Amino acid sequence: MNHEGSATARAHSNIALIKYWGNQGERLRLPANPSLSFNLAGLFTEVTVNWGADADSLTINGEQASPKATARVSSHLSALRQRLGFQGMAEVVSETNIPLGAGVASSAAAFAALTLAATTAAGFECDEATLSALARLGSGSAARSVPTGFVSLPAADTHAACHARSIAPPNHWALADVIALIETAPKKVSSLAGHRSAKTSPLQSARIKSAAERYRQCERAILTRDFDALAAVVELDSNAMHAVMMTSSPPLLYWHPASIAVMNAVTEWRRSGIPVCYTLDAGPNVHCICPQEVAPTIREGLRNIPGVVETMTAFVGKGAHVILDHAIS
Amino acid sequence: MNHEGSATARAHSNIALIKYWGNQGERLRLPANPSLSFNLAGLFTEVTVNWGADADSLTINGEQASPKATARVSSHLSALRQRLGFQGMAEVVSETNIPLGAGVASSAAAFAALTLAATTAAGFECDEATLSALARLGSGSAARSVPTGFVSLPAADTHAACHARSIAPPNHWALADVIALIETAPKKVSSLAGHRSAKTSPLQSARIKSAAERYRQCERAILTRDFDALAAVVELDSNAMHAVMMTSSPPLLYWHPASIAVMNAVTEWRRSGIPVCYTLDAGPNVHCICPQEVAPTIREGLRNIPGVVETMTAFVGKGAHVILDHAIS
Repeated sequence: MNHEGSATARAHSNIALIKYWGNQGERLRLPANPSLSFNLAGLFTEVTVNWGADADSLTINGEQASPKATARVSSHLSALRQRLGFQGMAEVVSETNIPLGAGVASSAAAFAALTLAATTAAGFECDEATLSALARLGSGSAARSVPTGFVSLPAADTHAACHARSIAPPNHWALADVIALIETAPKKVSSLAGHRSAKTSPLQSARIKSAAERYRQCERAILTRDFDALAAVVELDSNAMHAVMMTSSPPLLYWHPASIAVMNAVTEWRRSGIPVCYTLDAGPNVHCICPQEVAPTIREGLRNIPGVVETMTAFVGKGAHVILDHAIS
Repeated sequence: MNHEGSATARAHSNIALIKYWGNQGERLRLPANPSLSFNLAGLFTEVTVNWGADADSLTINGEQASPKATARVSSHLSALRQRLGFQGMAEVVSETNIPLGAGVASSAAAFAALTLAATTAAGFECDEATLSALARLGSGSAARSVPTGFVSLPAADTHAACHARSIAPPNHWALADVIALIETAPKKVSSLAGHRSAKTSPLQSARIKSAAERYRQCERAILTRDFDALAAVVELDSNAMHAVMMTSSPPLLYWHPASIAVMNAVTEWRRSGIPVCYTLDAGPNVHCICPQEVAPTIREGLRNIPGVVETMTAFVGKGAHVILDHAIS
């Protein structure tokens, strides 16, 4: 294996419809419950990896990254070096159009693209399952940004088995995620610290136990394109994750006043016949899931809610893919 | 026993620090978990019962009550008639300074006062435990408005054992409840329907299982006047109840945007050194619990939060008591 190749890969962010919160094994980021998501077309990160550098380095959107971010990337590269059995340092260049740290899962896209670019540049042709499992080591939800379209990640208890797979391609169901951005300031609590705190909630084990059933309902709703069934289970599952967050020690209350305003508006809209439902990740932004043709109506409605500073609309996107490959193998 | 006496009793509203949500037995309103509250001085209902009427009737604040409210009172009078073994119909006159249906537990004060006035007017001298158990049949939380000061209600599984008792008198700890009124419109979901829905949440049994420990922590914090310990367990318990509500089918999301704004402000204030914590009942209002001397500061802070339409401050109050007794026994 050479150590001087370079490659560029692109991966999309994803929105979880059944949430992953809490690990059964923290070191390997083995999730405590199965999750389900779709990739977000238009919200992506492109990562270029150049092996053969003097030290691991990272630039994000043209600027040298913080020591903390660089260390996290270097740590992920070390995991790849160790598991695939090669050496060398890499210059990593990341370009993204995702607002960083705003709860739009920027790390999922970044670590999926990084994993694909780094392995490709080093001359490996990993299959999708291997790539997804490797991406998971960098960020749990990154495993789901590797396969295409609608994606499932099981709560498997070994590294090799814990990889995502596509349950349907992007064109299976023309859904949209209209994201109401409530605040673009960085999160106060990192996702990793949040996952760690999950087990301090007296409600987490009950959430985990009941997640498999919600997963099945959600998968069935997607495969049969049943929006009413999807809406009910997606909102329930989002609420269940935030229920655990707000009963952890210390409590994590990610919702802002405008988050509630949007959640209430969404349920009112649905009551009036508009197919739309909400889901929130570890942040105040509200993801409004709806059929594509409804997206303009939702966007318009969101603009009238005080506290919504911006909206972004994404359709169902594909998986991680290589853009440029200069591996010298 | 005569059936023509009359009596007037007063009872206060109460605020639960450890919440009661969900019944183990619905007919007798036997709560699924122990709860802890204090009575709210200044927020009270006075009920006059005149036995010897042609039919049960109810006026509230000078106006004839709705058929639904009248039927609920008549049903409670029937329970009293049956359990204490007497007959007759009653004219019931209720005067209250509590905003009705705004989630300030108006039914607790009403059914505590009604139970005391009705039994006294009929010539019975029930002890506190008996009165509390009887009041519970009308409204679960009314059991806690019968004893004085800080009050505990166990999750007992028989009618006779399921009564509240005082764990400390009002002067034990000079606390205040500064209530941020977010909205004064009537609740969309009655408390009874809410209690029924609790078991549809996948998190309710975990909440119930962990409630006994929170109860013990809260009781200890009250008895030792440890505000930091009180704040942590009170907010956790409130969040745990709302976690169950928002994961019920259909979900109950009682929080409004301003509720979140107040909750976030309260935790910020506490972080800055002001002893205050929040708790919310089945409604959007936020009860800010703090030492009496801090109440003016909290009231002032609340007035600057958009969406807070009014504040009310209550100190720790006494139990239900007779004001006028014209029983002819």
